[in-house]
Amino acid sequence: MKRTLLSDLKSKKEKDQVLLNGWIHKINNFKNFSFVTLRDRSGFVQMIVEDEEILNSLKIEISVEVTGEVVLNKKAPEGVEVHVDDLKILGEGEYDLLPFAINGRTIDASLEKQLDYRTVTLRRKDKRSIFKIQQGIVEGFREFLSKEGFSEIHTPKIIGSETEGGSEVFTVDYFGQRAFLAQSPQFYKQMMVGSGMERVFEIGAAYRAELHSTWRHLNEYMSLDLEMGFISDEHDIMDLEEKMMKHIISQLEEKYKEELDLLKVDLPKIDKIPRIPLDKAQEILLEKYGKKSPEGNIDGEGEKLIYEYVKEKYGSEFVFLTDYPKSKRPLYTMPKKEDPEKTNSFDLIFRGLEITTGGQRIHSYSFLKKRIIEEGIKPENMDFYLETFKYGMPPHGGLAIGLERLTMMLLKLENIREATLFPRDINRIKP
Amino acid sequence: MKRTLLSDLKSKKEKDQVLLNGWIHKINNFKNFSFVTLRDRSGFVQMIVEDEEILNSLKIEISVEVTGEVVLNKKAPEGVEVHVDDLKILGEGEYDLLPFAINGRTIDASLEKQLDYRTVTLRRKDKRSIFKIQQGIVEGFREFLSKEGFSEIHTPKIIGSETEGGSEVFTVDYFGQRAFLAQSPQFYKQMMVGSGMERVFEIGAAYRAELHSTWRHLNEYMSLDLEMGFISDEHDIMDLEEKMMKHIISQLEEKYKEELDLLKVDLPKIDKIPRIPLDKAQEILLEKYGKKSPEGNIDGEGEKLIYEYVKEKYGSEFVFLTDYPKSKRPLYTMPKKEDPEKTNSFDLIFRGLEITTGGQRIHSYSFLKKRIIEEGIKPENMDFYLETFKYGMPPHGGLAIGLERLTMMLLKLENIREATLFPRDINRIKP
Repeated sequence: MKRTLLSDLKSKKEKDQVLLNGWIHKINNFKNFSFVTLRDRSGFVQMIVEDEEILNSLKIEISVEVTGEVVLNKKAPEGVEVHVDDLKILGEGEYDLLPFAINGRTIDASLEKQLDYRTVTLRRKDKRSIFKIQQGIVEGFREFLSKEGFSEIHTPKIIGSETEGGSEVFTVDYFGQRAFLAQSPQFYKQMMVGSGMERVFEIGAAYRAELHSTWRHLNEYMSLDLEMGFISDEHDIMDLEEKMMKHIISQLEEKYKEELDLLKVDLPKIDKIPRIPLDKAQEILLEKYGKKSPEGNIDGEGEKLIYEYVKEKYGSEFVFLTDYPKSKRPLYTMPKKEDPEKTNSFDLIFRGLEITTGGQRIHSYSFLKKRIIEEGIKPENMDFYLETFKYGMPPHGGLAIGLERLTMMLLKLENIREATLFPRDINRIKP
Repeated sequence: MKRTLLSDLKSKKEKDQVLLNGWIHKINNFKNFSFVTLRDRSGFVQMIVEDEEILNSLKIEISVEVTGEVVLNKKAPEGVEVHVDDLKILGEGEYDLLPFAINGRTIDASLEKQLDYRTVTLRRKDKRSIFKIQQGIVEGFREFLSKEGFSEIHTPKIIGSETEGGSEVFTVDYFGQRAFLAQSPQFYKQMMVGSGMERVFEIGAAYRAELHSTWRHLNEYMSLDLEMGFISDEHDIMDLEEKMMKHIISQLEEKYKEELDLLKVDLPKIDKIPRIPLDKAQEILLEKYGKKSPEGNIDGEGEKLIYEYVKEKYGSEFVFLTDYPKSKRPLYTMPKKEDPEKTNSFDLIFRGLEITTGGQRIHSYSFLKKRIIEEGIKPENMDFYLETFKYGMPPHGGLAIGLERLTMMLLKLENIREATLFPRDINRIKP
């Protein structure tokens, strides 16, 4: 007999014979029988077990193979029950106590403990739903960009030059040579634009050796990166992101309704995302909230307040902050024509947290080389990157989205680790 | 005016005004005009340039924006030409000589040099086609597994325990602590099966610190991994791979015909893939070819010969070798019921090279723990992995495919580096 997924039981008829696989989720004993809830990746079913030998062999969370008969019963939690004829144990329960109960309304354990027992935590459908929705985000990103003519690329994470960010880089022993883990695919995605691919995206790991441990940072995370050639300026990239976010959200609504409902998530509406120059945002914060901002940036509190402002004024949960000063952006950022101390750059703030950094990049070889020298870096150390710019590099720009961070903000989770299967931070390298 | 892709010019009418972006591919000067070939990500077009000032500004491989008029001309290489009205240089050519010519029939440079100038090499459509097809393989893998109920996962590449393969592991300085780069997502994908996801796949980097540099090895590569719960034995995994390879190949035929034609690739036919136990394969090699094999394995020459044998006898370019001895497989491999010195494992050989390793895994906690101790490993060092097995781990198995290797073999390339954007080997960490 072929296995029936529990979510497909509804389409069965009374007395149909079925073969089921899954884990024992709950056991309720009555006088002459027990209700045993079975769980698989698709859902649950209440089973009726009368055989005493079977009942004595059961333990919460063991995995089993069941054969039985379908009983349509409107009063049963799923509208259908299964009367068990036979049950075979596939995976034994070799534990004394579960680390915490997972068949209640919530888990009664700290996040730390839930992460220590990640694979037990994920046996809850609500916890798995977070990652289903995350998969939907990635699908939406990929699908949208493929249709827009982007190529998917895979670039190396072991790199020879420590170029992007000083101390915040992990070092690797590469056959006795000092190498580094890429903080982003920035240089490689730009090079691929220049290679003639023009439009590229990558879904890959990024590494930041940041010493602090916060609710919104990870030391290893998934970065959704894109880069695009032949643009006019950074507004082309913001236009693209706006369309892309609309697509992702509409896809989630369409394909992941069950998971969104289970997690009681309200997806944001996206229409036109307001674009506010950073200095204007600082003014608004000061005038409207008496909030002072650090020079050339806004801080976490500022991000929350500007979100409140934009939500009230424009009804948008997203806002682009634009025109960051040169001093606050990487050296490859394109300066503004009309004010070279500012740049063609932006952040996307969603519900008060930055989820994207992007902008137009410098494409002139001689200008980029000049900027590298200005920043005190030897151009020889960046030759692998600079070389491409000699051969007609087109105007280009791009952006990066932190996948776990976007997931967290969409689902209104409290900690980015809830949206990460196996988070890595300064205190956690296991499991 | 909106940009027209060169591949879309065919659908234009005579005298249509168009705006084009791309790189100057070739210049042929005549007395009163020049033919200038423009190249973009989609193709080529021959342009007629009469303006001397424009002509004098041109240089091979600069990027430009062109406005002009469509001229239908059956004699032109693409059946359509563009008469140039205006041309703006977007990206200058700040080089004296190209590292090698890229507008000829082939590139006259060593593979080493081509890789040193990767982004110049990729300006050739044939070189980019390799990666288009690679993208098609990934799409096929993802699409097939999603339909089969698999979840896409992202697991960490920085890991705390060096568990899989002794010396061949890269070390990372993780905040002063010794950590490692994952050689595969093996343990994590098994744990995710146990978490209730049941069926998972991952497309991610894998790291092998192998000291040798060969045509078929990389130190950083993309691994297409899958793992599946509630299986009967390894034949379920082989059945799945057979169906999956069929799907991937039919998708390539459907969606990447242009690239396959350009590279003159004959895709293999897949019907039923023969399954031959390893010891039987060794016998065949000895009897038919006088070829001796190393104990419990076959070597590179043996892989080629068994391919020849299977191709001749069954008309298949693929063959599963099964039932590898316990001593040649990782400790987590499930022993055969009828002969515990052999295992429920397989390799998939394609055109004489192993492209997949897979099998059924041990799912019993106590048995796995016993095997760990037998191999001289402290179970405490693997507790992050073992823990999941206490809670009803179902029978499961999976496989891994090296993406670059599969690409190389499908396209009959000579070196795996040709199918890698930026290969990493013992001598190469740049670009």
